[in-house]
Amino acid sequence: MKKLYIVGTGPGDKEFVIPKAIAAVEASTDLVAYGLYLDLLGSVCDGKTHHDLPLGEEIGRARLALDLAASGKTTSLISSGDVGIYAMATLVFELLDQQLQGKEKHPEWLDVDIEVVPGISAMQAGASRVGALLGHDFCTISLSDLLTPWETILKRLHACGQGDFVVSFYNPRSKKRDWQINTARDILLEYRPASTPVLVGRQLTREDESITIIRLDELDAKDIDMFTLVTVGNSETQHIVNGSSEWVYTPRGYRKKL
Amino acid sequence: MKKLYIVGTGPGDKEFVIPKAIAAVEASTDLVAYGLYLDLLGSVCDGKTHHDLPLGEEIGRARLALDLAASGKTTSLISSGDVGIYAMATLVFELLDQQLQGKEKHPEWLDVDIEVVPGISAMQAGASRVGALLGHDFCTISLSDLLTPWETILKRLHACGQGDFVVSFYNPRSKKRDWQINTARDILLEYRPASTPVLVGRQLTREDESITIIRLDELDAKDIDMFTLVTVGNSETQHIVNGSSEWVYTPRGYRKKL
Repeated sequence: MKKLYIVGTGPGDKEFVIPKAIAAVEASTDLVAYGLYLDLLGSVCDGKTHHDLPLGEEIGRARLALDLAASGKTTSLISSGDVGIYAMATLVFELLDQQLQGKEKHPEWLDVDIEVVPGISAMQAGASRVGALLGHDFCTISLSDLLTPWETILKRLHACGQGDFVVSFYNPRSKKRDWQINTARDILLEYRPASTPVLVGRQLTREDESITIIRLDELDAKDIDMFTLVTVGNSETQHIVNGSSEWVYTPRGYRKKL
Repeated sequence: MKKLYIVGTGPGDKEFVIPKAIAAVEASTDLVAYGLYLDLLGSVCDGKTHHDLPLGEEIGRARLALDLAASGKTTSLISSGDVGIYAMATLVFELLDQQLQGKEKHPEWLDVDIEVVPGISAMQAGASRVGALLGHDFCTISLSDLLTPWETILKRLHACGQGDFVVSFYNPRSKKRDWQINTARDILLEYRPASTPVLVGRQLTREDESITIIRLDELDAKDIDMFTLVTVGNSETQHIVNGSSEWVYTPRGYRKKL
């Protein structure tokens, strides 16, 4: 059977990779991924054929993975984090959909058995490192307007504010996009206190991890890059300090019962 | 050092448990958890002292875990899914916060070193089983009004609709709460098409897993129970059928570039 695994490898540390992901890589002869992700996975990738493509070549990578699998090579298409969250999985199904509609010329793709393996997403790694920031209703918003119209992102920022959701911002900044995170901050400040706790987590679970907890009104693009996760609490999120430990949690409402 | 691990064990299947969670359980002498979760984890729990408490005793379970750790027993407090998402982690920090404010009488809790270990949440397992349902901005809403006022939940349902977020409903129904999911459906129908794809996933990754893909206007409380995850697509989510396979994906917007 022709097989394509679409695999998420978590935030970076191997201790966050689920066994099902390792098994998928082990079962594959061909891996389509950035080199960095394979370095993080380590020896399980030894002896596999590695296909790399430059950053930004997401469509090419998805096509290549489908082509390899259709040619009979068991293949893993690998992203860090959860491959189903702002990552490669949806692109593979978008290509399949195009083929089903006759807009592609790759009927062989339709013979590939596909299995998606989820992973720990950055927001989860970040929330766990500071306590329980995702303890109540939350949302995620990508601040990249390369594929999504800015008006749609604006609409979601306001909806997030109105709904008082904890929010994790993915793709908060890139070399060419530097103002979106400040606009997002200003919109949220219309809805929740300036003192709302914010997690700024960079290179989560990796060797050069840095984590800071700031106030919403201190959030600034100058402290953010493309390796950063930003999660903003809701209006009830608490920042507590116990000696040298500090924690952020979003209560579910047990307080009245404690 | 006095140590408390707060551990998420994923949706059920051991293949979805991260190594860091297994290591935490291995390092512990005492486990605070439902029996079912330990059965799913298997032999790693052998030889540990198991502390169980009835369903609904969440506060008691969090207190017990803090007490055990403070007494010098390395302890794991275990939930299925991601322990930071609608689970036990936030309750531990809520108790710590009460102690820091002098509203509890357990200063010994403040000497406990706490580490939170995230896990794969039900929404991730569900999305991966059907393709890439969480492929673009999404939110989560708990439909339990035991701890959250219904007005707050209503506000979030409307915000979700206005923002056109994919949405995963946690706690969609219990024995005593049977009408919330139908109200949630009716609110979303004000904002997105009746044909919007919906995942109804029960006992995800477990032996008796069942997964169905329906239309939003077919969603009904009679098909839901407390072991069910419901995820509703956004206005662009696609349901595609390829022979005997069917998939649901939420596009990121690559279509214009394909």
